[in-house]
Amino acid sequence: MFVSDCLGINAKGHLTIDEKDTLELAGEYGTPLYVMSETQIRENCRKFRRSFEEHYGGNGMALYASKAFCCKAVCRIAQEEGMGLDVVSAGELYTAESIGFPAERIYFHGNNKTPEELVEALRYGVGTIVVDNITELEVLDQIAASMGKTAGIMFRVKPGVDAHTHDFIRTGQIDSKFGVALETGEAMEAVCRAAELSHVRLTGLHCHIGSQIFDIDPFEEAARVMLRFLAEVRERTGLTLSKLNLGGGFGIKYVPENDPAGLETYMGRVSAVVHGECGRLGLPIPFILIEPGRSVVGDAGITLYRVGAVKTIPGVRTYLSVDGGMTDNPRYALYQARYEALVAARAGEAKTMEVTLAGRCCESGDLIGENMLLQPAAPGDVVAVLSTGAYNYSMASNYNRVPRPPVVLVKGAESRVAVRRETLEDMISHDEL
Amino acid sequence: MFVSDCLGINAKGHLTIDEKDTLELAGEYGTPLYVMSETQIRENCRKFRRSFEEHYGGNGMALYASKAFCCKAVCRIAQEEGMGLDVVSAGELYTAESIGFPAERIYFHGNNKTPEELVEALRYGVGTIVVDNITELEVLDQIAASMGKTAGIMFRVKPGVDAHTHDFIRTGQIDSKFGVALETGEAMEAVCRAAELSHVRLTGLHCHIGSQIFDIDPFEEAARVMLRFLAEVRERTGLTLSKLNLGGGFGIKYVPENDPAGLETYMGRVSAVVHGECGRLGLPIPFILIEPGRSVVGDAGITLYRVGAVKTIPGVRTYLSVDGGMTDNPRYALYQARYEALVAARAGEAKTMEVTLAGRCCESGDLIGENMLLQPAAPGDVVAVLSTGAYNYSMASNYNRVPRPPVVLVKGAESRVAVRRETLEDMISHDEL
Repeated sequence: MFVSDCLGINAKGHLTIDEKDTLELAGEYGTPLYVMSETQIRENCRKFRRSFEEHYGGNGMALYASKAFCCKAVCRIAQEEGMGLDVVSAGELYTAESIGFPAERIYFHGNNKTPEELVEALRYGVGTIVVDNITELEVLDQIAASMGKTAGIMFRVKPGVDAHTHDFIRTGQIDSKFGVALETGEAMEAVCRAAELSHVRLTGLHCHIGSQIFDIDPFEEAARVMLRFLAEVRERTGLTLSKLNLGGGFGIKYVPENDPAGLETYMGRVSAVVHGECGRLGLPIPFILIEPGRSVVGDAGITLYRVGAVKTIPGVRTYLSVDGGMTDNPRYALYQARYEALVAARAGEAKTMEVTLAGRCCESGDLIGENMLLQPAAPGDVVAVLSTGAYNYSMASNYNRVPRPPVVLVKGAESRVAVRRETLEDMISHDEL
Repeated sequence: MFVSDCLGINAKGHLTIDEKDTLELAGEYGTPLYVMSETQIRENCRKFRRSFEEHYGGNGMALYASKAFCCKAVCRIAQEEGMGLDVVSAGELYTAESIGFPAERIYFHGNNKTPEELVEALRYGVGTIVVDNITELEVLDQIAASMGKTAGIMFRVKPGVDAHTHDFIRTGQIDSKFGVALETGEAMEAVCRAAELSHVRLTGLHCHIGSQIFDIDPFEEAARVMLRFLAEVRERTGLTLSKLNLGGGFGIKYVPENDPAGLETYMGRVSAVVHGECGRLGLPIPFILIEPGRSVVGDAGITLYRVGAVKTIPGVRTYLSVDGGMTDNPRYALYQARYEALVAARAGEAKTMEVTLAGRCCESGDLIGENMLLQPAAPGDVVAVLSTGAYNYSMASNYNRVPRPPVVLVKGAESRVAVRRETLEDMISHDEL
């Protein structure tokens, strides 16, 4: 009945996550509070793993895109579930290293990695650096040479597929800050240059066509384009690249109207393209990588807030103000993202109150959502916003010097803190006079 | 020649802030780096003070709206310059308290203050709590009673003036999460209720009509509406409220095309309204408060970045990627805000390169701006983005686990750290396994 399987309603009529009563969690840890189901995260990881077994005979791996939500505990879960890890900064790498994430399963991304980050990646022995452009390739080769290392690399290629318009034009995606373009010859130039350098070892190609994509067509098209390019590379350079990273972007259900294609549909249809094109082109089946982030953690998380002011403006709207807002979830302010919300104590009752869920920041745009349907709510009620596991904690700020909420992981009937709540002292801990 | 007086060009052709060479600052403190001119902040504070002397005979005070940029050092500057302080959270209050900011000059705002915050405000003896709504009024009275205190309060009133459309309609502004509305009778109801309660002392009224406002007309209209309401309050209740807080919202120059009315124009025209209306209505001239935030710190700050990748997409655009982005300045992502930028080493040269200034985050929307004119730039160059003193550090995040840059204050030829750079260790300091 909910957008996420880990949610339910107990005998008291309260919203539950795994076997925990959300009102008890709000009481124990305070609000605002991020809560995530470890069970759901692990199950999501396992779905990817099973799907690779089924559709590629295990010849592939899902990399958890840690920008969706990076902390030690989630890196550890990804490690235990046999996932690889996609990191995009020294900070994410540092997190991975702090729990001993196997370096060879780490992929380091970014359109503008600093020289210091490249050094760190090589020092830790990161398996693959996904090189963004030819300048970075040259810098990396020099750094690797100076360290006496050889960097395993892929290139980020712009396949010219625009996931948002679905007409596969080559204008939208070519205008990206990420990667080298196919149609201008830049991607081939990068491959040829890599072949000449002695401190990089090109193992494959990467592409990523967007975020929160519901249709399979653009994923199929991207796979087709990339495989044809692998064939071109072989023809031009003699190199048979062994890995193809098809990126992420799989949509999740934020509100009931969302209808993302399921993982099985994605894996089935894309693997058919991979097998078909490889057969047609006489290519060996590459090791396939994908990079789910949102679809690993998004539906595993909820945010619990306590309602403060309830303000009805006759004929206009009712504002329900909560004790968090754009500081812990900036996605409405940034993207007008939509969420489902409910009153935790009356989770099964009819939603008869239309509200604008407002945050506590001194900013008019500090909203969680407009025109949301909720069970009738009053000051003191706990409101749960669903599917906040991705891009909420990771994008949180201290705007208004509001401390960031903690992240609590729930597993069955147990709960534990994965990220501690910030304190007032934390707010000034870097200030000097 | 620049949007801010504290900027200049030295004999080397480098951009300076106060007497410091920005390239030297970038070298000494690293990039990305926020730099602020203490001289400019103090001069901005003094402008407000002088203007209150001139236009109100000193019968008024500017409150620094600390949400624009709150840290110990800036609170201390505001204190030393005789400003009051507008805080919106326990975190901002904690910062003010940490430097001993005089409690009676603090105004505590917010649409949804928590009970804990009200307790903190009363404990520290905050001079004025700007009460948002009648529910908060009741809660505050009870808390004050339980603590044996009396809270000095104002009400935040929606004057029904929409600063953005300029047609003074009463629909836009009534639809705000902040305050009590005049036209529905809610504001008068709040005033009457406050008069009945024994642990609050109503001293005045507050309004705030928006942000980054360039015209004076809506400010005049808001003052007129509020003074008429003060007269109505006196007529209805016999209370002559002694303070009128006209809020903030004064626009600053981000790009040369911006043409904000000057402070003198604002103070002259609004004080004429205040004096005129008070005379007409037979009201004593109230103590006038205003709440500049952006206009105190905005033009005092710049951000220095180092250029990494330069990516020209033929016929489309050139991306200049820097080592910061939406993590330290989310205002383009949030509001499509515009900034001026230049190459610090060639600050006086012609701007002949049109670029999209991109950040380093793994997100397509991570831009500082599009179609910006710059001096020709190459990897390794330091780029300065101007007028970033407000709502940059304060809204910064650790998205992608990117550490937040430090804030360096420059005063003449001296510089010092006001906020330390975050470290990689900070990124995981709240994580638990």
